[in-house]
Amino acid sequence: MDPCTSLATGTVREAALAARSAADRLATTTGAERDAALTAVSGRLTARVLDVLAANERDLAAARANGLPDAVLDRLALDTDQIDSLASMVRDLADRPDPLGEVTRGAVMPSGLEVREIRTPIGVVGMIYEGRPNVTVDAGVLCLKSGNAALLRGSSSARHTNAALIDIMREGIASADLPPDTLQAVPGDTHASVHELMSLTGLVDVLVPRGGRELIRTTVREAAVPVIETGVGNCHVYVDEHADLDMALSILLNAKTQRPTVCNAAESLLVHAAVADSFLPRALAALADRDVTVHGDRRVRAYDASVVPATDEDWGREYLSLDIAAAVVDSMDAAVCHIRLHGSGHTEAIVTDSQTAARRFVAALDTAVVAVNASTRLADGAELGLGTELGISTQKLHARGPMGLSALTTTKCVVTGDGHIRGATPMTTSLSCDALGRPPRGRS
Amino acid sequence: MDPCTSLATGTVREAALAARSAADRLATTTGAERDAALTAVSGRLTARVLDVLAANERDLAAARANGLPDAVLDRLALDTDQIDSLASMVRDLADRPDPLGEVTRGAVMPSGLEVREIRTPIGVVGMIYEGRPNVTVDAGVLCLKSGNAALLRGSSSARHTNAALIDIMREGIASADLPPDTLQAVPGDTHASVHELMSLTGLVDVLVPRGGRELIRTTVREAAVPVIETGVGNCHVYVDEHADLDMALSILLNAKTQRPTVCNAAESLLVHAAVADSFLPRALAALADRDVTVHGDRRVRAYDASVVPATDEDWGREYLSLDIAAAVVDSMDAAVCHIRLHGSGHTEAIVTDSQTAARRFVAALDTAVVAVNASTRLADGAELGLGTELGISTQKLHARGPMGLSALTTTKCVVTGDGHIRGATPMTTSLSCDALGRPPRGRS
Repeated sequence: MDPCTSLATGTVREAALAARSAADRLATTTGAERDAALTAVSGRLTARVLDVLAANERDLAAARANGLPDAVLDRLALDTDQIDSLASMVRDLADRPDPLGEVTRGAVMPSGLEVREIRTPIGVVGMIYEGRPNVTVDAGVLCLKSGNAALLRGSSSARHTNAALIDIMREGIASADLPPDTLQAVPGDTHASVHELMSLTGLVDVLVPRGGRELIRTTVREAAVPVIETGVGNCHVYVDEHADLDMALSILLNAKTQRPTVCNAAESLLVHAAVADSFLPRALAALADRDVTVHGDRRVRAYDASVVPATDEDWGREYLSLDIAAAVVDSMDAAVCHIRLHGSGHTEAIVTDSQTAARRFVAALDTAVVAVNASTRLADGAELGLGTELGISTQKLHARGPMGLSALTTTKCVVTGDGHIRGATPMTTSLSCDALGRPPRGRS
Repeated sequence: MDPCTSLATGTVREAALAARSAADRLATTTGAERDAALTAVSGRLTARVLDVLAANERDLAAARANGLPDAVLDRLALDTDQIDSLASMVRDLADRPDPLGEVTRGAVMPSGLEVREIRTPIGVVGMIYEGRPNVTVDAGVLCLKSGNAALLRGSSSARHTNAALIDIMREGIASADLPPDTLQAVPGDTHASVHELMSLTGLVDVLVPRGGRELIRTTVREAAVPVIETGVGNCHVYVDEHADLDMALSILLNAKTQRPTVCNAAESLLVHAAVADSFLPRALAALADRDVTVHGDRRVRAYDASVVPATDEDWGREYLSLDIAAAVVDSMDAAVCHIRLHGSGHTEAIVTDSQTAARRFVAALDTAVVAVNASTRLADGAELGLGTELGISTQKLHARGPMGLSALTTTKCVVTGDGHIRGATPMTTSLSCDALGRPPRGRS
């Protein structure tokens, strides 16, 4: 059976209804049931590695035939090692604690009313993403672990690979007696089907777009379903007057060049005037060594003729390439003002040995992540102990920063009484025995 | 000075910019500074009670002149006692713990990198509400306590009262050396100004509509700014076959009649067939005694000729009046299915002495609040220990159920290292003394 055929039938609404019904079932599963499904998924990923490679080869052949650039082919390609590491990630996820059922708040009110707020699944999650097919597995298994059903809509250039991965995950889920419709591809391959997904309020609980700026903007603008915005980052590295300059250089180079195409790479450098003379010549030479183009203000350009003039636009850009904007600032407060004006609320780093400066920088900036003497590249779920991440939220509501399992949960408030009503003192429920230890008369 | 004049100048965007700047300042205040402002607000509410009463009298006179119904006049009117209890609520709020700075997650990663996720303010909150002027104070001081600036847009029929209350709160805030623009009325009194407020993405972080169904729907549909949906409730009371029927009657009457115009009042009654004969005749008589009109299915109508036939629409209605829909169900699972189909995800109650039934009901329903042997009317911030509430969220993202102070916060992830970068083992930072207790050579 061609996995694509089995997944591409039916309408988006039908898929969402099936997801809703799977979500209803998942809401009453135990963690052990969901972990058994994850273990089955992991085993099948290893067992069916050839199916994935064959599907991936079809996508790669089509991409080559369509003349897609090497960078796209590179992101699209999966090899045995990558599939093995997906399988091992899924196995590790099965070992993590269940995010559901956690009591996030609990109290007994003076009236004796018991209150417990507990973590529950969100329900149906729609995921719209570009690029690497591993996101299909990441998103799918995070949803399964947290008791959510997912509608997955990846890039059309990865359609066969994604279909094979979804088929494998569904097979694993079904083998563990959970509903395979927990994970489905969004039927249809047109913009109309994405648009229908965005309109299904009441059936789809949340949409998570993950990809380029245009994808995210379109989703936020067009969706009637609530959206969690992810990942546009204009991350700054600020080198304070009290910085250890060796450390500053190491952090700057890591933040800019370790993987320049991702949202937590640095896009702007700010240097305190007091250390500009000692830091900038070294930093500019090291950046040039690594083929980084620096877009500098007048004071930065004074150190190196190869620095190109920064325009006003450069301060707000997410290059996602070997480019960086750079300016000299006269104080830490000037750096904070620059970041408030141009930052995207993703990740901001300060390099300083001053406690005062670090505390002030952390308090003054309204951003998902602040790094003190650490690289912006560490703003990542796995690096920060959250495990595999669904994406990095740059919005303030619900989830902010790297999103792990708890971002896929909501809460339910369970209130338990003995006939408690509003505006009246409750019945006495105390039980006292008499002096001989017998229960009071009339009480069973 | 007429407080209205001072608040109605400028554009909505100017007000939002001023709020943004106040929010930046608030983000670095201590809890003690914000509590001092709350104490000052409380004192001024008491001291300026006559100003509030005079402003309220102007609104009441205008409302009478416009022929507004008694119910509206009733909600609009404030008396000295009510203002005193607002002042005392504000004083109590000052005594509650600061919601900011709480570490919601913390870890030291294997590399030594320190991770702390801390509660921070959301920023600028827009509040659009109808009815009672006390919401002006509730929303204003909750935002102040949680370090947020607020743009308040109340009902135009309460404009003078709201302006006086905002003026008093601003005066208290200024006297404590915090920015008075922390709280502002939305300038202008037209729909255009509300619409502008809804469009200010980047300046306004969240909108909270609180009022009727139409207000909430319009805000959700029209706003570009993220919205927290509140308060439409089709709450059910399910009387299980294992219910204590006296308790069931007491809960039913409280849930339906104690205050029928609010979102946590019961709108639907479901009775297990096994107890219908013993429960329904008593319940229908007691409801009739309290002037409640019952809209029943065929099986309910068999018990009492005064029950009017329920149409399909009745199962989904939020009456907000002395009406209730009622049906007999053959099992608890049938009750759950009915509620899944018609419920609004606000509050659902079960009356039962069976642990099995209670656990199943709680697990199976996807709703903000589930009450076991307790009235739906207890789904309220103060009743559940959260203090004064901003509203009851019926959405799943960010905040669900009664919203207290923590619903007005987001988090910031603070990452601290010693030059930690991605993809490399960190420098050794261990410090060992020699056998004589001296620090190692070369270390200062």
